[in-house]
Amino acid sequence: MSVTAPLGFRAAGVAAGIKGGEARDLALVVNDGPSRAAAGVFTRNRVKAAPVLWSQQVLRGGRVRAVVLNSGGANACTGAPGFQDTHATAEKVGQVLQDSAGEIAVCSTGLIGERLPMDKLLPAIDVAAGQLSRDGGLAAADAIRTTDKVAKIAFRRADGYTIGGMAKGAGMLAPSLATMLCVLTTDADLDSAALDRALRAATAVTFDRLDTDGCISTNDTVLLLASGASGTTPDEAEFTALLTEVCADLTRQLLNDAEGASKTIAIEVVGAASDFDAVTVGRAIARNNLLKCAIHGEDPNWGRVLAAVGSTEAVFEPDKINVAINGVWVCRGGAVGDDRGKVDLSPREVTITVDLSAGPASATVWTTDLTAEYVHENSAYST
Amino acid sequence: MSVTAPLGFRAAGVAAGIKGGEARDLALVVNDGPSRAAAGVFTRNRVKAAPVLWSQQVLRGGRVRAVVLNSGGANACTGAPGFQDTHATAEKVGQVLQDSAGEIAVCSTGLIGERLPMDKLLPAIDVAAGQLSRDGGLAAADAIRTTDKVAKIAFRRADGYTIGGMAKGAGMLAPSLATMLCVLTTDADLDSAALDRALRAATAVTFDRLDTDGCISTNDTVLLLASGASGTTPDEAEFTALLTEVCADLTRQLLNDAEGASKTIAIEVVGAASDFDAVTVGRAIARNNLLKCAIHGEDPNWGRVLAAVGSTEAVFEPDKINVAINGVWVCRGGAVGDDRGKVDLSPREVTITVDLSAGPASATVWTTDLTAEYVHENSAYST
Repeated sequence: MSVTAPLGFRAAGVAAGIKGGEARDLALVVNDGPSRAAAGVFTRNRVKAAPVLWSQQVLRGGRVRAVVLNSGGANACTGAPGFQDTHATAEKVGQVLQDSAGEIAVCSTGLIGERLPMDKLLPAIDVAAGQLSRDGGLAAADAIRTTDKVAKIAFRRADGYTIGGMAKGAGMLAPSLATMLCVLTTDADLDSAALDRALRAATAVTFDRLDTDGCISTNDTVLLLASGASGTTPDEAEFTALLTEVCADLTRQLLNDAEGASKTIAIEVVGAASDFDAVTVGRAIARNNLLKCAIHGEDPNWGRVLAAVGSTEAVFEPDKINVAINGVWVCRGGAVGDDRGKVDLSPREVTITVDLSAGPASATVWTTDLTAEYVHENSAYST
Repeated sequence: MSVTAPLGFRAAGVAAGIKGGEARDLALVVNDGPSRAAAGVFTRNRVKAAPVLWSQQVLRGGRVRAVVLNSGGANACTGAPGFQDTHATAEKVGQVLQDSAGEIAVCSTGLIGERLPMDKLLPAIDVAAGQLSRDGGLAAADAIRTTDKVAKIAFRRADGYTIGGMAKGAGMLAPSLATMLCVLTTDADLDSAALDRALRAATAVTFDRLDTDGCISTNDTVLLLASGASGTTPDEAEFTALLTEVCADLTRQLLNDAEGASKTIAIEVVGAASDFDAVTVGRAIARNNLLKCAIHGEDPNWGRVLAAVGSTEAVFEPDKINVAINGVWVCRGGAVGDDRGKVDLSPREVTITVDLSAGPASATVWTTDLTAEYVHENSAYST
């Protein structure tokens, strides 16, 4: 189902040979309308890949006819020639769809610093266009995988409309393990401003709170396309809630497939003075390599949690922090709490709860452990 | 030689049984004067260990008679009882030296969140006091090791005075892999204000620019003690330069002994708009797990360097960044440069040069690669 779950969308995923094998590496998602309202959020990295620079321009118009995505190359740090490659890709899609290149978004993922093989990519667009169908969502989701072990798709139906989506990457919108790409679709009839508000609200509490290794990609992109084909204009709050559910579902799939991870860790920060503080503290903990190693070793090393909290500027008193690991309050009042021997870290799912005792705000940040497999996978990636 | 290289200092290192074996784990460094001027810099972590809180108070007076250091326990996150343990430790040293506890600095390193075994620690101070000697510098340096494979000592002689030092830890003053402790001694005759200026200047360009894993310890401490026993009052700039040499020597030793590292990486940032920008960019690169994995795999993955640069707020234009890895300019103008196949990453020493083309400032930050051994060592530490 994926991006073709809502009415008005067709998709395809084909093997262009960009990856150099038989694996699918080019996806096309087409919005057949009647609306083509769209919104997007992009990486905050100041070194942005060519497709990000291009798609940001496209989204400024608030309309997207189609998205073309490739794995096998990020087209980042490729200079003006790389941007021309992205432009040529959009022109080609515009040509096969008999539409304007200015409403074609482009996403790429893979190694930084290499030009894309345009001699393989452009002909594959013709092939993909020929295979576009209402059943193509899964093939498209498959084509955007890099180190992803599984394709990530999700959809939710509400009264009168549907939201679908596909994603790739073991990372997130801002910081990112590898490039994270996501295309969300809906047959609801909403204008681009409403879509933008809903998308920013949904991603802020889902993809934005996934932090597997603190590395910010040059290519992260999340697009939301609305066909309006259902004829339903939902209540914006209800739509945002449903969109958040789809994003949360995809976020969980990204987390579960993070490179080399053996544990998924939810860091719940409560008692914070503000949402900002809660996220800041959660992110500092999520990025602490020593803690991530400890969780890998099934060691409830709460001292590393406190050391991470202490590295932030959040509002707290060191002697008022409480920490629970999988429900056992191992640290109370900044010092030794209940018996750490009672903590069971054998399950894959780990929850670390940090009570800052400084206010009413809370947030959950998701991360993974740090493993030898992560090191191996990222040492050998480009060789 | 170590801390006892300058005149006026005695030291000892003994096995108190804190670590639970025969290994030395308690060190004592005594300044016999005639001066006892001193300065100190401490972790910026807001969760500070009891000995840090204590020693900060001591250093406010600008005088230190002795430093007592233990490995085997950090005495961090131990609440009021932990602070009382530190206080009792200082009192005990004051008693055996027939001096004021208020001029006894205390340093601890080891696991966070556990009380120190005072029944072992206090009697060992008597033993250490009995073994104090002008030859005790190496034993003291040995006693403060935790995961350090080797003891770290250094000294430099100038015309009329000497600076010595010992350090432990595979980390740094601000961010830290594990606790970093350092005691520097000199027989130069300088007041505490001059010592403070020299120490801040020296550590800012040495320990402060070592960033092995971005984790900030609760216990980091660097102390500088002056006995004045040489009768020489050196020029402050000359003294600062010599002190910086000693700190740089110890920094290099810490780097070479960093947990699990197989590569030492110097990140030279040039062409920065300010020193702050240069250090910010260097630190962002030093903390990028993906790049650290790539270097481990001997993969000259300059795209990850650019992605790290792009995550900062430093002044730069993405298309004006040049990157060399071990002398090969693999990225020019933010895009592909010379053949990455020419980069030889087989030596242990790796240099990454980043030219921001934004100004005249430069800085070097040192880090290590990320390895499966690092993960193993830090997964198994407390178990």
